[in-house]
Amino acid sequence: MKDLVGAMIFAQSGGPTSVINASAAGVFTEALNQKNITAVYGAAHGIKGILTEQFYDMAQEDREELELLKYTPSSALGSVRYKLKDYDVDPTDYNRLLEVFKKYNIRYFFYNGGNDSMDTCNKISKFMAQSGWDCNVMGVPKTIDNDLMGTDHCPGFASAAKYIATTAMEVALDSRVYDTGLVCVMEVMGRNAGWLTAATALSNIQGKGVDLIYLPETPFDMDKFVEDVKAVCAKNENKCFVAVSEGIKFADGSYVGEFKASKTDLFGHAQLGGVCSILANVIKEKLGVKVRAIELNLMQRCAAHLASKVDVEEAFEAGRQAVIAAVNGYTDFMVAYERSQGEKYETVYKLVPLSICANTEKKVPAEWITENGTNVSKEYIDYVLPLIQGKWETPKENGLPRFARLKKVLAAK
Amino acid sequence: MKDLVGAMIFAQSGGPTSVINASAAGVFTEALNQKNITAVYGAAHGIKGILTEQFYDMAQEDREELELLKYTPSSALGSVRYKLKDYDVDPTDYNRLLEVFKKYNIRYFFYNGGNDSMDTCNKISKFMAQSGWDCNVMGVPKTIDNDLMGTDHCPGFASAAKYIATTAMEVALDSRVYDTGLVCVMEVMGRNAGWLTAATALSNIQGKGVDLIYLPETPFDMDKFVEDVKAVCAKNENKCFVAVSEGIKFADGSYVGEFKASKTDLFGHAQLGGVCSILANVIKEKLGVKVRAIELNLMQRCAAHLASKVDVEEAFEAGRQAVIAAVNGYTDFMVAYERSQGEKYETVYKLVPLSICANTEKKVPAEWITENGTNVSKEYIDYVLPLIQGKWETPKENGLPRFARLKKVLAAK
Repeated sequence: MKDLVGAMIFAQSGGPTSVINASAAGVFTEALNQKNITAVYGAAHGIKGILTEQFYDMAQEDREELELLKYTPSSALGSVRYKLKDYDVDPTDYNRLLEVFKKYNIRYFFYNGGNDSMDTCNKISKFMAQSGWDCNVMGVPKTIDNDLMGTDHCPGFASAAKYIATTAMEVALDSRVYDTGLVCVMEVMGRNAGWLTAATALSNIQGKGVDLIYLPETPFDMDKFVEDVKAVCAKNENKCFVAVSEGIKFADGSYVGEFKASKTDLFGHAQLGGVCSILANVIKEKLGVKVRAIELNLMQRCAAHLASKVDVEEAFEAGRQAVIAAVNGYTDFMVAYERSQGEKYETVYKLVPLSICANTEKKVPAEWITENGTNVSKEYIDYVLPLIQGKWETPKENGLPRFARLKKVLAAK
Repeated sequence: MKDLVGAMIFAQSGGPTSVINASAAGVFTEALNQKNITAVYGAAHGIKGILTEQFYDMAQEDREELELLKYTPSSALGSVRYKLKDYDVDPTDYNRLLEVFKKYNIRYFFYNGGNDSMDTCNKISKFMAQSGWDCNVMGVPKTIDNDLMGTDHCPGFASAAKYIATTAMEVALDSRVYDTGLVCVMEVMGRNAGWLTAATALSNIQGKGVDLIYLPETPFDMDKFVEDVKAVCAKNENKCFVAVSEGIKFADGSYVGEFKASKTDLFGHAQLGGVCSILANVIKEKLGVKVRAIELNLMQRCAAHLASKVDVEEAFEAGRQAVIAAVNGYTDFMVAYERSQGEKYETVYKLVPLSICANTEKKVPAEWITENGTNVSKEYIDYVLPLIQGKWETPKENGLPRFARLKKVLAAK
């Protein structure tokens, strides 16, 4: 283990979350305190900003603004969706990265993202080792989808779950307010894993929330769906509140949402609007009841005003732990959460090899999905409930959230 | 002025808001304290519950739960969309109402709603007077649309505005996170008045929020819209964030959103999805940029977790003032807000004749809309900012809002 002295760079990748910047705050705060780290850089737009040398000099930022990053949603440095090719297929990016790392004496690299990003991180880590350039590489987890392997849960998931559960409680009341029938279909993010959609089950803890929940883990059958809704309507004055994942699939593996791709409007272009619109249309046609399609859209991943305190604090600490581990000589790991065994909820931070998280997906366990495939079990509730506790009190200005204002001073090339 | 002794009934009507139940709490709390009021009833589903004698006995409710109504969105008693015909056209409902009022000795009637409901209230008031049945009738205002005449603003508007402004700030950050172009079109409620859509302008106070705002007060031109977006994109790396009212109209008076009615999918039924989808599709086609349509849907009117403290307190007081006025002999009025002249924001409660509010609409003044028709002036900001101050701290259970749980004991018929 070598005592590396040099610059560090941190980059954000993939879809943002409410707390992604809390991890950035943790990384930068800790890095600025480490004597072996000689310069603290944030890359603009993930890996692309490294390839193009768009580095923000984080030492130029006010500490108060870095603190405010904890309350600021979306990726403050800018994000990117960019998948590194395998070295064998195209070594260009790798060679360029090495060139840049050498030029700035980058000895610590931190990449914040989901399973794709952990794959990128893993590839860079292996390449640097093979090239003989000493650089400790650490992944910082992030995804509202909660589908990373090797960690109990993912930073960003709990805040999205809290927003979704609260919103489902509110919409449940609103959707049943009239004495006439209404079938409400709410669409939640999560392409292949139903963790977030399942969070709508929390709306039933205190009162009448969602009636039916459809996860991508269970094959979707349109006829069964219509029958499910019909049965609920029969018992509830033609009212039914459905939660559905954007990623539900038919038994043949095709996405229910891609159904829309075959539908074009009068001008010949594909319709916007997700799976909730498709399902609402089917119910309207088959049951003749009034319908409403609700897409939680970007709000579910950026509603920092409803962030979970547990999530913000853990995301910050995940960032800090990544820096501490890297400075202590660890490389090629991702920071992960472990739930301590005691009765009180506590998080233990650990390191898992990047190869475990790269390109893998953790799904909702089959035994947590109820037999009829339209609800989740108590195990899921017990799993998620401790994570959404506490409200993070966002600083306010004019009755509105006060987000961080970074100077974003570019480092000299 | 007669000293009326007898029962009271309160009913909720029209689309719910985050704070509609705060007014109910104000009405019930005050009515339960008035010695001239011998029974306190809440009607199920507005005027329909009166016609069918579905009365909840509010004295049976726990006072703590009535207090929790302040934090509970949607209409706790159930709402209705029901427009009384003119007496000349059909006297059936009027005669039935009189029968019910006599049976229960209803001497006080309170109706909570928007301009349609104030019309209903006005008609009932006039009919009871003509029939010689002494009954003081009071309207309690309610509408997120903020379009009631005779009042500075309407209960429910400020909380929706606070939700919309906060969400626009969050989505603005999220929608600009990538280094690729994106035109985001966010649709806000308000069929004929743009008060709520204009609240997205608050997202620009602290940083970069919405770029373009389209209100129903200004005739909408599709070509100009495309040019507006194109101009913003040219200056902002192909990124543009648009806020649009559901009620924007072409110069010929037809709704841009009804455009969709002519569009049917492959199965022959009309497409769901509002004006945001239509505009996003047009931009995609004309400018070839990535688009995203966001409908704030029911969330904007039921997001009690982000209610404005000012709004909740005013809504509660509006309910109280209605009861106090009625007991003091006033009838055929609506409680209204006046803004005191001092520097500090303060509300003065007053009474305006129901006829002023019945079926009229207050729109955003033309001089508050900027010349190019895509923004609002400082006057609007100064108007709305005091209203969204303060966050109402919802009581929590399990990290989720604790809504009121009413027993809803039906009074004996």
